[in-house]
Parts: sequence; C-alpha cells; structure tokens
Amino acid sequence: MRYSRLFPKSSKQFSQEAILASHRLLSQAGYIKESVAGRYYLLPLGLRVQQKIQQIIKEEMDKAGYQELLTPILHPISLWKETKRTASVGFELMTVHDRNNSEFVLGGTAEEMLVDLVRKYQISYKDLPINLYQFSTKFRDELRAKGGLLRLREFVMKDAYSFAANEEDFIKEYKQMWQTYLKIFERLGLLVTVIESDNGYIGGEYCHEFVVPQESGESRYFISADGSYAAHEDVAKIRLENKNIDEPEKPLEKVDATRGSTMEDGAKFHNLPLWRELKNVLFVDENGRFILAVIRGDLDVNETKLTHVSKVYLLRHATDEEIIDLVRSFPGFISPVGIKNGLDKDLKMIIVADESLYTVKNAYSGANEKDKDYLNINMNRDFKADVIGDIAAAFEGATAPSGAGVLTAKKGIEVGNIFQLGFYYSKKMTDATFFDKEGKPQPYYMGCYGIGLARTMATVVEEHHDQNGIIWPESIAPYRVHLIGLDLNDKEILSRAEKIYDSLCAQGIEVLFDDRVGVSAGEKFSNADLIGIPVRAVISKRTEDKLEIKKRDQKQTQFIPLKEIFKYL
Amino acid sequence: MRYSRLFPKSSKQFSQEAILASHRLLSQAGYIKESVAGRYYLLPLGLRVQQKIQQIIKEEMDKAGYQELLTPILHPISLWKETKRTASVGFELMTVHDRNNSEFVLGGTAEEMLVDLVRKYQISYKDLPINLYQFSTKFRDELRAKGGLLRLREFVMKDAYSFAANEEDFIKEYKQMWQTYLKIFERLGLLVTVIESDNGYIGGEYCHEFVVPQESGESRYFISADGSYAAHEDVAKIRLENKNIDEPEKPLEKVDATRGSTMEDGAKFHNLPLWRELKNVLFVDENGRFILAVIRGDLDVNETKLTHVSKVYLLRHATDEEIIDLVRSFPGFISPVGIKNGLDKDLKMIIVADESLYTVKNAYSGANEKDKDYLNINMNRDFKADVIGDIAAAFEGATAPSGAGVLTAKKGIEVGNIFQLGFYYSKKMTDATFFDKEGKPQPYYMGCYGIGLARTMATVVEEHHDQNGIIWPESIAPYRVHLIGLDLNDKEILSRAEKIYDSLCAQGIEVLFDDRVGVSAGEKFSNADLIGIPVRAVISKRTEDKLEIKKRDQKQTQFIPLKEIFKYL
Repeated sequence: MRYSRLFPKSSKQFSQEAILASHRLLSQAGYIKESVAGRYYLLPLGLRVQQKIQQIIKEEMDKAGYQELLTPILHPISLWKETKRTASVGFELMTVHDRNNSEFVLGGTAEEMLVDLVRKYQISYKDLPINLYQFSTKFRDELRAKGGLLRLREFVMKDAYSFAANEEDFIKEYKQMWQTYLKIFERLGLLVTVIESDNGYIGGEYCHEFVVPQESGESRYFISADGSYAAHEDVAKIRLENKNIDEPEKPLEKVDATRGSTMEDGAKFHNLPLWRELKNVLFVDENGRFILAVIRGDLDVNETKLTHVSKVYLLRHATDEEIIDLVRSFPGFISPVGIKNGLDKDLKMIIVADESLYTVKNAYSGANEKDKDYLNINMNRDFKADVIGDIAAAFEGATAPSGAGVLTAKKGIEVGNIFQLGFYYSKKMTDATFFDKEGKPQPYYMGCYGIGLARTMATVVEEHHDQNGIIWPESIAPYRVHLIGLDLNDKEILSRAEKIYDSLCAQGIEVLFDDRVGVSAGEKFSNADLIGIPVRAVISKRTEDKLEIKKRDQKQTQFIPLKEIFKYL
Repeated sequence: MRYSRLFPKSSKQFSQEAILASHRLLSQAGYIKESVAGRYYLLPLGLRVQQKIQQIIKEEMDKAGYQELLTPILHPISLWKETKRTASVGFELMTVHDRNNSEFVLGGTAEEMLVDLVRKYQISYKDLPINLYQFSTKFRDELRAKGGLLRLREFVMKDAYSFAANEEDFIKEYKQMWQTYLKIFERLGLLVTVIESDNGYIGGEYCHEFVVPQESGESRYFISADGSYAAHEDVAKIRLENKNIDEPEKPLEKVDATRGSTMEDGAKFHNLPLWRELKNVLFVDENGRFILAVIRGDLDVNETKLTHVSKVYLLRHATDEEIIDLVRSFPGFISPVGIKNGLDKDLKMIIVADESLYTVKNAYSGANEKDKDYLNINMNRDFKADVIGDIAAAFEGATAPSGAGVLTAKKGIEVGNIFQLGFYYSKKMTDATFFDKEGKPQPYYMGCYGIGLARTMATVVEEHHDQNGIIWPESIAPYRVHLIGLDLNDKEILSRAEKIYDSLCAQGIEVLFDDRVGVSAGEKFSNADLIGIPVRAVISKRTEDKLEIKKRDQKQTQFIPLKEIFKYL
C-alpha cells in the first residue's frame, strides 16, 4: 500500500475526550473514526487489524472443531419472549418494527437464535456436541459509551455456542474453549487472567471472564496472593472468621440512642465493635417491592450479588421518604426486627440476610424509630430472613475463600468470556431437545463464549504502545514493513525505492510504502512511530544499496544489504 | 471436514414455497435455513461459499485500488435528512431509536455515511480519487420477500464509493469498476449482460445493472439484436418513426362520440389509426397532485420513467370518482384540452407529454365529458404540457434507439450495479468538499457500486445445477473434494480412508469427508450430487489402492492411483 493513496492520513488532532491511549493513538494514526458516541468507522488500517484478529480467532475456533455460520442480525422478538430476556436485558436491548409491524431485536447475543436454528432439525445424541460460532455485528444500547473501542454500542463479536448431551460432555467443551481462548490471546500478544465472573443477563450458573490487567479497565476483580483464586468483584467470595459465636444469646433490649445516623455513630454510642452492629440497607426492586439487605456491620453489600440472591433485575436505594412514610422506620435506625409490622398493607418486603450473620451473636442496630436502638439481636429468634445468602462485597486484605492468602484488588479489561448455560435456554424454549439413545427428547446442555474484536484491538494498544505511538505485535500489525523513502526527488533513489517496494510485495510481504515527495524525514519517522508497524525500513541517499532497518520496539538501527532483506524478514 | 460432524446434514424436506431451484437446493443441501421471511441463517456450508465469493470480490476490488473499511450499521438519521432520502426511500427504510431517543437508520446503502466520513478530513485534490468499499449487512424492508436468497430483507453487500475531483476522473473510475465487475462475475462462473438501468432512490443521472439472463429473474430488460443496446424496461428507449407530421394542422373540433371507454373503442368509432389517438392516463402523486400523462395511442406509459420526468416519488392511478368529482372529466374521455379548467381550485395538476407527441398531428381523444371527443388536437396549440419527456414503455419489436435492429424482451437476475452519483450527495450535504489547486472548496464527483453476496450465490445455483443438485464452479465450491468412504465397517478400508483424508488436508486441499458408517452408498452419492462439490472421490473395497473419481459436471468415472491423486487435483 502506498501511503500517498491511504485513506485517511495520520493526524495530530484528536478529541479532548480521548483520555485512553488506545482511543487517542488509534484515532490519530487513522485506524478509527467516531461516527457518533459508541459507533465507529473502522478505517482501512483499523479493519486490517480487526481482520487479522478475526483470522487468528477463526483458526483457533476451527481447530477446536467449531463450525462458523452467520445468523440474521434482526432476531424475531418472539424468541426473546420465550426466554423472557426482553425483561432481563432491559434498556440495553434495541428493538425495531418492520413495515408489517413485526418486531425484532437488534442482536446483542444470539442464544435464542442458535437454539431456534438447532431445534429446526431432528438432532440425535450422535450429532452432539454441536459447536457453532459466528462473527457478526452486535448492538448494546449502553447508557454511556466513552473510551473509544473499549465501550461500544455496535461492534463485531465472535460468539460461539455449544450444545451437549449432558453436563459431563459440556464441561469438556468449556475446558476446551478455555484453552482455546488462552491460545488466542497469547497469539494476540495479550497476557490474560481468568476470573470467575457474573453472568449478567446471559443466564446459567457460572462463567469466567478473560481480563487483561490494566488500570484503564472497567472490570474490578480480586486475586489471591498465590493467584489460585481470582474473581470479579460482583462474585468474589471471602472467608469470614467467626466472631462472638460462642456467646450465649442475651435478651433483646430496646434502648434510647440519641446518636447520629451512621454505622460509626452507633458503634461509638454503644462502645461496641462495628462487626457486632447490623448494617441494614433498604432497596426497591423493579416491581416496587422493598428488599432489606442485612449484613455484618464491618462488611458492605454488593448489589450484583444482592440482585441474584433476591432474584430481581434492578435495584435502587429506597428514599428517606419511603423509609419514613411507607415503611414507618427511620433513616439510620432501620432494623430487621419487626420492620414488616409497620409496612403499609399493599406493600411487600423481603429480608435478605448475608451469611456473615451466622458469625455474630447479640448484635445491635436501630429499632425502626428515631433515637432508639435494639441490643442483643439474634437472627431467627428476633427476625426471620426470607433469604440467606452471600451478598457481601469482597475487599482488599480479606481472606480468599480457599484460605489461600489475602485478596488484592485489581482492574482489568474484559476481552473474552465463557458461560455455562446449562438448561437455561433449552428448558425455557419449546422443543429445544435432541433424541437420546432411547429415542426420548432431552434438553441440550449449553454454553456460550464471546470475544469482542474491537475491544481486543484497543486492549492490544493499551498494552503495546509508548509515548510516540502504537507498537503492534507482528501477528496483528496492519503491515509487516513500513518502507520509508527519503530524497525521492532524486530519480535514482525513487526508482530504487519503487523496485524494493515491488519486490517486497511480490514476495507476499505486506508493506506500507511512504512514497510521499516533499514530506520531511522527521514527519515520516514520527508518522511511522505513531502507526506502529513492527519493522521500519528506510531507503535514502545515505543508505546506498542497503536498507536502514529499525524495529518499532527497539532503539538501534542496522543496515541490511538489499539482497539480504528477505532473509532478514 | 467430516460429514459426520457437519451441522446440519442434508435433508429431503423443503418448504412448499421453494419454487426456485436455488431456494430448494440450498435449503435441502444444508447451505441456508430461513429464520423468518427474507432473513436467513447462512449455515457452515453456505457461509463458506459466501466467504469465497467475498474473497474473489475483495481481491478484484483491491487490485482496482479500492480500500476496504467498515461503517457502523446504524446511521444517524440526521445524515439521511441532509439528503432528504428519508422521504424518497419510503417504506424500505427501517429506523430505530436508542435509549437516549436518538434515531438511526438501519443501513440500506451508505452514501451519506461515506460522505460524512470523508468530510471529517481535510481532503486535497492530491488525495483524490478516494475509493472505499466495505462488506456489511444491509437492510431492506421489502414488502414481499420470497424466493430464498434472491430477495432478502437482510444480506451482506459489497458497497463501494468513489470520490473524484471532476467528471473526467470519475468516468475513469466508473469504467474501471465496470471492468472489475466483469472479472468478478467471470471468476464466479456467471455470464452477465450489462444494461442501462434506473437509479431508484440512489440518485444520480445514469447507472448500469449487471444481470444474468434467467427466467427466474425480476429484472425485465430489452436488448437489441446485435447486443449493442441493452436497457432495463424502466429506462429502455425506443426510436419512434414520424407519423403524419407533414400534415397541416386542422381546426379543433368537438364531436359526439357515443362509444365505449377503451382506446380501441375510440379508434373504431372514428375509424382512425390508434397512433393518432391520445392516450391520457391520470395519476396522483405522494402530495395529492394530479399528473396527467399524455402519450401516443399505440404506446404505453412506463410509470418509473413518469416518476422521474415528473420528479415525484410515488404514483397511483386516479379513481373514477376523482376523475368525475374533482377533475370534472369522465373515465375514457379524458383529454388534455381544457382539463385544468374543470379542476377544483385547491387542487393542482401537471400535464406530462411523451416525446411521441412530436411525431403526430391532428390527434383525437375524449373531450372531458361523456360521449364527446375532440378531433384534430395539436399540442402547444390546443394544450400546453408542463413537462415533455420520455415516458414511453419499450416493447418487443420496437426499434433500438441507435436504430440497430429491433428489441427483444428478456428477464434476468440483477447481481450488481454501478451508479454515477455526480454531485447528488456532495451538493446536498454541507462541507462535502475538497480543496482544489487554488485552495478553493469544491464538491466531490461521486459514484457508488454494489454487489449482493447472497443473491450472487443463489444466481450461481440457478445457473449451475441439474435435477440432482448443485454443480458449483470450483472457484466458490465449499470444498474441492467430496471424499466418500464406503464399506467403512472394514477396518482396513476405514484406515485407508482416514489416511487419504489426512493427507489431502495436509496438502491444503479442502475436503468434505463422508465418514459415516451405516449409510448406504446410494444415499452418500445422492447427497454428494445435492451438495455439488466439484470432485467426488470414492474409496471402498472395490477401489483397492485407487480412488474412483467423478466430476460433478461429468458422467464418467475414472480410477486414479492414490499416489497420483495430488497430481490429478
């Protein structure tokens, strides 16, 4: 490719919003251009990189026995209604009507479409496992879309789906995909950490995220000192020590407590440890029901865990007015003890207790009226939780669940994920079955697996750049060699440069040839650094019958005779 | 690929709606599966074919100097409003709102997006021509979508856009793309005819369609005996002979005419030739305005031509009630003479005369009241046309415009098209300019160029099949060799088959290996015929150390020793 013909040229300008290196460098070097927030043009250079990423993923998926296909982008909404995901996905889902008033979902993930496809055929146990994948444009109606390619509303995703006869066979698929992902990210020049993660609206019982540790990432996770435990903050577990569990239960007592409304105010007033206090946080779910989360005072509630344990989709904090007028309690003095008694009749509430309450006795908290506290609260005796589960937020310094050292918090970019789906889809959708050996229909045991291509590209740039520009790994660089011609006014040098360009191309080497006349050496060099092609080769008056070679990730240059250039490359 | 693992297997079932061979064969052989009308899954076999078509197009586009990029699928509607195409495209356009209430068009073509991209950069005349293309999913909200891949509501299209400094440079691009298309279709095994065609809602002044002559096609066109003239019926011109043009104009006369309402009734009643009668057809446009089309009685009005000449988007025939109550004329007795006098004040009408009226004098027609006719009507003396243009439908046996013989009507499948756009977009959109040598901003002179991939695939099947199945050209066959193992219960034969499969794969030859045990030879053979891979290679007890080779498009088989198979292939 001749740089003189390339659209567009690099530019020094960039948006003030481009805080991340990948956003700024990819924009300046001419890889991407924003259309509107979260929607980008992939320019010729950018598309080349994305295609190479796609090719690497394809090779590894094919090796793993997956078969590539392509589903429509518009999914009949009836399928999403079968699984009720129209409700769970909420505002991230875009829908559109056609002229016949049929409604479609703009695909964000394609589980229903794949199940609908597979169930159109008579599948026998002999046909399983079926492993299918595609590269296709996905839509996410994100509330905020900043950060260039790291959070997009529209992007090409590799999404794969496995259909197995049973859990055992599925686990083989899951492990194989895990290994396949490790190979893919290694070839892409990314060092990933695999963490347990939350399945969001995908469904299923467990899943893993492949993250690249990066301060610019949006995934916060905890990792044990020895690395044996790593989990996203939304699912990270901690080991809790027992506190005063051997103490005998004392009688419940209601006392005056003219104090402030914080947890610390309570601890100070009673001169008791924070862990003995109950932290009571009142939420409202998507149906207007109150959810009272109760947790040990030294811990925090993780809202994602709380939604799962409560089986709700959306949570918001209750307002002071709701606490006073509807629940008849008081901010800062909420207590699970007797709280449902004050509730208006037409309102509903569930109490969700964290497992940490098993580690404490004779706790204290408010008494649902101003300046009154209860002492010696004991779960089951003084109040009943509707649900008991893990709703505690992990924190730095906590003990890993295995007991293997303390947890450290890290941030990373999520570049891929793998999900166990189990029967989540196949039991919700009719006829999503195969025939077993006895000829009886059985639901498929499923999994799904995703990698976003553009975000992967941006992550590679976050990992591989310096102050002058991008430093592409050879595997996905848009070109292998950046040939720079200097002194091209000199016809003899021009002809030499053209000849070397032609012969590199003829050898199948991908070359970007800066053939511009009247552009300074300095500009061409800084341009090359910005674009980040692995090998820079300069031809000029000075180089005679050699090429001056510099690798993008090294400082020194060396002169290679033209004849030896192929051997060198 | 092992056939035992392939998803899905071929099936004898097919939809009753699959009338076309391509629809039926691609469905049965497992290349495609319908999701809902007009939206198809491309299954692993089908996607392989589409990818090969894509690769051929890409190679030829790259050779022609075009650069591949990728635009978002969702186009901000503001861009389509800039060019007013939201009005002209009408119901084929789908739009969607995001959660922030921004409205987007689901891309059907991407002219606005490309102009919007290019105008984001400072383009100099030195940067031109800029040639960009993409492969991306397009959406057309077609009223009817039948016929498998021939009329889709969602499909991958190669769309290309050229930006030139002036018409002269553009014409070079246009000619080059024409040649590029010829090469592409030749490589795909398609014999195309290039015809002048209508630009629909794309805009611009002229365009060409690449059609494959086929009875199943939806494009009707006319071609001269020597092939030097070929044009879609919507634009096809004919050479008109002068009739009684030398006759002196006689005085206009209103006469009683108790006759029927057809053209023939008039000719019979007056005993005058049909060509001397005026055919008056009353339409209503999208704004409720009347359009009176006037043409020589022996010709028909082509509505597409009429929309262009009248500069309207949509036409419908006026009803009898409208003719009587609003226009104060009478069905079968409409005349351009004085017709506007009867019209209600708040109504508008334009008279559009066909150029054929220049070839006739002293014509006759109705007189805007029942059973009254005018004789000796002469345009300009007795009525004035608001517009005079070519609105005549071509017909078989008419003379080609060049005079080169008579026209024959044919049908074909449109597989590609190329459009001159001129300044249509660059003058409607602000700042769609480059800087000329004097540094002055000038609008780009544009063109655009499309090929639908799935329709191309279906067209190849329409052209290349027999009663048993598809016969793929080697260039786009999903696999090169269909290896069939028979007698695989015999371990020695199985091992020989596996060995030959492995060694073919190792040589980079794409093989579909029917490794199924317990399936009859007959079923495997008919399966192979259906799928249509160019070379069938059988290994069985009977073949010993040879392979029994049969080409899909030939009848005879031959035995090739295993050792010579690579040489043979």
